[in-house]
Amino acid sequence: MSRSDETVQLSLFQLDNYGPWTVTPSPRRETDLQALQSRLYADLADFVSGFDGYAFYDRFDNLIAVTNGISIDDHRRFQQRVRNRYPITVSIAVGTGATPVAALGAAGEALQAAGSAQDGSRTEALVHAGPQSQPGPVTIAHFDVVDVTGEFTDQQHPARTTLAVQRATLELATVLYEEHESIARFVGGDNIIAVCPTLEPAAFDAAREHVYGATGIDLQVGIGRGETAHEAGYRAKLALEECRETGVRRYEYHPHAAAD
Amino acid sequence: MSRSDETVQLSLFQLDNYGPWTVTPSPRRETDLQALQSRLYADLADFVSGFDGYAFYDRFDNLIAVTNGISIDDHRRFQQRVRNRYPITVSIAVGTGATPVAALGAAGEALQAAGSAQDGSRTEALVHAGPQSQPGPVTIAHFDVVDVTGEFTDQQHPARTTLAVQRATLELATVLYEEHESIARFVGGDNIIAVCPTLEPAAFDAAREHVYGATGIDLQVGIGRGETAHEAGYRAKLALEECRETGVRRYEYHPHAAAD
Amino acid sequence: MSRSDETVQLSLFQLDNYGPWTVTPSPRRETDLQALQSRLYADLADFVSGFDGYAFYDRFDNLIAVTNGISIDDHRRFQQRVRNRYPITVSIAVGTGATPVAALGAAGEALQAAGSAQDGSRTEALVHAGPQSQPGPVTIAHFDVVDVTGEFTDQQHPARTTLAVQRATLELATVLYEEHESIARFVGGDNIIAVCPTLEPAAFDAAREHVYGATGIDLQVGIGRGETAHEAGYRAKLALEECRETGVRRYEYHPHAAAD
Amino acid sequence: MSRSDETVQLSLFQLDNYGPWTVTPSPRRETDLQALQSRLYADLADFVSGFDGYAFYDRFDNLIAVTNGISIDDHRRFQQRVRNRYPITVSIAVGTGATPVAALGAAGEALQAAGSAQDGSRTEALVHAGPQSQPGPVTIAHFDVVDVTGEFTDQQHPARTTLAVQRATLELATVLYEEHESIARFVGGDNIIAVCPTLEPAAFDAAREHVYGATGIDLQVGIGRGETAHEAGYRAKLALEECRETGVRRYEYHPHAAAD
Repeated sequence: MSRSDETVQLSLFQLDNYGPWTVTPSPRRETDLQALQSRLYADLADFVSGFDGYAFYDRFDNLIAVTNGISIDDHRRFQQRVRNRYPITVSIAVGTGATPVAALGAAGEALQAAGSAQDGSRTEALVHAGPQSQPGPVTIAHFDVVDVTGEFTDQQHPARTTLAVQRATLELATVLYEEHESIARFVGGDNIIAVCPTLEPAAFDAAREHVYGATGIDLQVGIGRGETAHEAGYRAKLALEECRETGVRRYEYHPHAAAD
Repeated sequence: MSRSDETVQLSLFQLDNYGPWTVTPSPRRETDLQALQSRLYADLADFVSGFDGYAFYDRFDNLIAVTNGISIDDHRRFQQRVRNRYPITVSIAVGTGATPVAALGAAGEALQAAGSAQDGSRTEALVHAGPQSQPGPVTIAHFDVVDVTGEFTDQQHPARTTLAVQRATLELATVLYEEHESIARFVGGDNIIAVCPTLEPAAFDAAREHVYGATGIDLQVGIGRGETAHEAGYRAKLALEECRETGVRRYEYHPHAAAD
Repeated sequence: MSRSDETVQLSLFQLDNYGPWTVTPSPRRETDLQALQSRLYADLADFVSGFDGYAFYDRFDNLIAVTNGISIDDHRRFQQRVRNRYPITVSIAVGTGATPVAALGAAGEALQAAGSAQDGSRTEALVHAGPQSQPGPVTIAHFDVVDVTGEFTDQQHPARTTLAVQRATLELATVLYEEHESIARFVGGDNIIAVCPTLEPAAFDAAREHVYGATGIDLQVGIGRGETAHEAGYRAKLALEECRETGVRRYEYHPHAAAD
Repeated sequence: MSRSDETVQLSLFQLDNYGPWTVTPSPRRETDLQALQSRLYADLADFVSGFDGYAFYDRFDNLIAVTNGISIDDHRRFQQRVRNRYPITVSIAVGTGATPVAALGAAGEALQAAGSAQDGSRTEALVHAGPQSQPGPVTIAHFDVVDVTGEFTDQQHPARTTLAVQRATLELATVLYEEHESIARFVGGDNIIAVCPTLEPAAFDAAREHVYGATGIDLQVGIGRGETAHEAGYRAKLALEECRETGVRRYEYHPHAAAD
């Protein structure tokens, strides 16, 4: 499925003992928690952005990022930043692997071995797992819903639109995870971004068709490859623009343009 | 399904012409967009928090909030705040109705009537729809996954845990929307919050059972009622704590304790 | 100097035991502290903005705000927000008085009585001092440097410009504090905002002349009065625009236009 | 005054046409401007922090940073981040020189040559000035007021304390600028940080004595030197801790401990 010499690096950021904190000594105001979580996510996005990485909010108390080229010391720096600015701390596992699923799996196992997410004595763990080989090129696939504005946003009940996008996201993320070793996450609007190993074009078509079959929602996808998540993702965005303009449902960027 | 004299107010915040902006003149860096969206959401959470409301990120370019007691002028104030601090603007529809689904539906229709989400000439629309009756008490149901840490976070591949929570969220949100006139949204971790009309206890049990049947995931729910989303939600959190401590799967708060 | 029936309310926000925290267990990174302080200040600005107040960063570990109309419970709400989102806590003293200096003085004394700024056991004090009479109209004077861009920013060494603005600020704040019972603070660029009791026009002229005599810097001032700091300050801004357009050095707004 | 082979790099960040923007089409709410400015400053602090730099808010519409080791392309990246997240844009001048004053002066002249701060057609200028030699070690001097809590914060009117700190800052910044080619800025509390060339110990003593003579305020100073502002500044903080513990008024760090 993926080239044997590929290595990708994903990191898992897990807030330490966060659940109990949110109700100690009594339940904290929900809007404060929402603001805390989303600002911490924004800080993570900024942090990995400095290294041309990508971040996903995942479950907000567990966040993930593509961190090719970000060292353990750099991750420690982010741990310090969180400790210096938030009332909570974060443990981090850096995972490498031949595919995104393998890399994130390695990270997850390493973090589980370091202690429970609700172990009050596990604070600011920083672990690494997986092959030490230098992470190589990344593939990013950027999906969206064909004409979401015309078909959904401007026509449907807002909750129906959101449920449709959520269902498409879930079906896509599930099939990419189970069959193509990829991690896909919702990133706002009708956009879903997947971190992939090298895949055949047929894999993307099969995923799109699975989603259409299960939900009736028509996705298009731009695919890019690059040394970093940003470079690959920028190319994927250009490729998705090509879909929007030409009506083709899958387009892979060929490197004739530079990432900005 | 709901008492005939109930009125709830939900507001829909829609970024103006946001999709085109994200790719003009060329695709903007994804991490910048993520940080923009999540900080704007944090600002919305803070804003409605001042009025004891609740906010949900929904799709980030469309956000929703429970806004009982927040006037049109207050909403205009938030519009100004966004214009003064972000490179984009926001249109807002304030909807009232006998149920959350009716209120959000009214908001959605009013906003659609004001112009397309990608209409370059619709900027900072501020509309209201629905009965003028004073919004009354709100019901909040706060769900989470029974022992998510022990069963999932500390055991499973991180992506599998996230997919499980997403699937539970989607099934719950769908059944509450379609059968119980409620709006449910993921709020981080394994937490899902629903804004509901007055419902019979059996409705919550049926929703929990539907999720269990469809996904095998066991949810528990705390239910609270109050004059504002915060008051109701705080009581729901206390009720959920009761579930966590006693093992009961549904608990409705009875007003013997004050919201902090 | 001020009308005997005036009452103004100022609040002092003091981070608890902050100095020791910044070096425990070892000195924290300066840029993290800068980001922490300035974001907390932004949150305070947003918070008082919801009540049409004004905030000043003062010394960042001690911040002040004009809080007419903001109750003790509202202040407690801000204390919670800080606790829920930052690694530090804040004590607050709400002071009322016939003048801004009297109000802030009352706040300062109340906070000093509650414990030292570096008393590890004083956490989240919330005290009130001063007459209970309902705070009335506020006077805001908004100063800037005449042609700062042409005379300074576009011509001088950047450090020289900054020193000039700092010197003008210090001279102005000193004379307004010592002779006119007013609190003046730098708010960015070449702007200085003063919270004043009712003053004769001659007082502003004398303050401007003092600054010119001591520094050679020519200030202009717009003056507004209103029920809240925002209303008064908006009018002061309109008045300052009149100075910029007509060349007059002092202009007091007369209520023929509404605050936006 | 400085070693002839030293080079330091400072950058000047100037918001484009900001003054006019703040009053177009009508004066924007002051608290919104305060929040905008301070969050942008926090973002700058985070940005340079990724390269171990230091940032100062300066006048908020003009910000400065020690940027040794930060390339022109990195600065362009920050320009993009601002454009993607704020309603305003920023021009940047990167200056190098034998001293901080020379470096900031070169930056200022280059920016002035690129167009006025209020030239509506100067947008996102990015210029460089000064010798191309690789920036070398940096000296940071971290000052604070001896026993500010006991002498001022816990005893005096809050405004009097702030005026005292402002006066000490101004006198210190002036003498360091005029006589020692250094840039000093207030960083919160009673802390003032100076970026210096290599100076004799007598220079710091003279500066302290000047401040004491002019204001009666007793400053102590920790001095550090390192490859980056963070490394030098961390050492300066350790040195200042030595002052606090031993009562000595000036202490220069000798490299027996590592920056964290």
